Amino acid sequence: MADPRARLLALDGLDPLIERGRLQWRALAEAPPGADLVLLGLVDGVPHFVAVPDRAGNAATGRPPHIFGLLAQLPRDEMALYGAARAMVEWHGRHRFCPACAGTTSAFKGGWGRQCGGCGAQHFPRTDPVVIMLAEHDGAVLLGRGLGWPEGRYSALAGFVEPGESIEEAVARELLEESGVRAFDVRYVASQPWPFPSQLMIGCHCISEGRALDIDTSELADLIWATRDEVVAALAGDADARFIAPPPFAIARDLLEWWVAG
Amino acid sequence: MADPRARLLALDGLDPLIERGRLQWRALAEAPPGADLVLLGLVDGVPHFVAVPDRAGNAATGRPPHIFGLLAQLPRDEMALYGAARAMVEWHGRHRFCPACAGTTSAFKGGWGRQCGGCGAQHFPRTDPVVIMLAEHDGAVLLGRGLGWPEGRYSALAGFVEPGESIEEAVARELLEESGVRAFDVRYVASQPWPFPSQLMIGCHCISEGRALDIDTSELADLIWATRDEVVAALAGDADARFIAPPPFAIARDLLEWWVAG
Ligand SMILES: [Zn+2]
Ligand SMILES: [Zn+2]
Repeated sequence: MADPRARLLALDGLDPLIERGRLQWRALAEAPPGADLVLLGLVDGVPHFVAVPDRAGNAATGRPPHIFGLLAQLPRDEMALYGAARAMVEWHGRHRFCPACAGTTSAFKGGWGRQCGGCGAQHFPRTDPVVIMLAEHDGAVLLGRGLGWPEGRYSALAGFVEPGESIEEAVARELLEESGVRAFDVRYVASQPWPFPSQLMIGCHCISEGRALDIDTSELADLIWATRDEVVAALAGDADARFIAPPPFAIARDLLEWWVAG
Repeated sequence: MADPRARLLALDGLDPLIERGRLQWRALAEAPPGADLVLLGLVDGVPHFVAVPDRAGNAATGRPPHIFGLLAQLPRDEMALYGAARAMVEWHGRHRFCPACAGTTSAFKGGWGRQCGGCGAQHFPRTDPVVIMLAEHDGAVLLGRGLGWPEGRYSALAGFVEPGESIEEAVARELLEESGVRAFDVRYVASQPWPFPSQLMIGCHCISEGRALDIDTSELADLIWATRDEVVAALAGDADARFIAPPPFAIARDLLEWWVAG
């Protein structure tokens, strides 16, 4: 913090301030007095920080509709840097008190943890593992439309890994719960951090023994088996495609592109 | 809870009570009055619960030395059931208060969440993704001995996935931080829940470009490159093996067995 070159990420609420396709930075001295600071790391030896906004705890979580447009302007490394910053400030905002004793916590370890002034417990940022999976049967994959999603938008099914489960068990349970489909040959494909608010998306593929569906209507509006041609048309954004594909930066889209590529 | 057949997991503190190699169960009516109950699930249609011990919040976390001996007596499905129960009761014990507003929380959703009586925020069990990796170079794998570990005990390096990272990036960062080794070709191998207190272990393999080491002495006492023959001897428990292999049920041992099997 004493380094005069130290920089501070410019935010508008929780959103990035972007100019000419790059994140904007200020001098660290512009941080609000007393704000918790998180050291994001060194870039070419220069310390980069983000300050926790006063009201981050009150901000709506989840994915605001405009965020994809903002992220689309950034190079990949800045996307990742902003993602880490956003996950951290949201976590700080929601953890000002100790869940064990209700004491007041304060940031330590360069902003990568909070310590309780009451019981001394140390708390660290939370990252929730989520499985997201393409179930395949005879040349088609299972896609779902969540309740309240725009008409036509379909994506891979997903859900949180629960205590006591492996990744493979979580895929099988979520698929069975949401669609009635029994999975086998579960295979890891790729992973991606998802900072809305703080998830680790774990993309998998599996095989289904059939196409019979038993939809969980508390979570899903519809389920379809989409053929390779239908997925290709959706990824291409064809006007007459059977469904609207997941947006760029969503791992569901990567999974579909991986599957189409064989 | 109204089902007269409902059963309650018998615990000794946080440890399982085991008889003739099986978990022991009581009638749900034997739960302490007012205790938070977690529905573990239905086994042959019969609801199975665990009660959160009054003082779970004060119990030492981490892996007690005797737990492997207890778990070794159980069939795999009961190991998983106990693991989920243990992770859940530890989480409840450490989350009696809302980290956002310091209000008092109470269990809801069959014990799979807690809701704040103050601000209404809903809190869900936490599972921390951890990468654990075998870095390979020219027929040998990198193993480390943690500070304070018994002499001779070595295992795969591991660390928490941080906000903003993919699994593959976390492997590369942890390996570089702890050993100075640069990873490429990171590959997912297997995963395992680890309820001490609540982790998802994500086992990976990667290739190192060399064997030069820059050990992180704040975490590790030693690092070695172990050849296939040395790993085989350690897994067999040979008296003159170069190191003591990780214990059964640890995914590090599975990674070594997977590697030895080619
Ligand atoms: Zn505390
Ligand atoms: Zn609250």
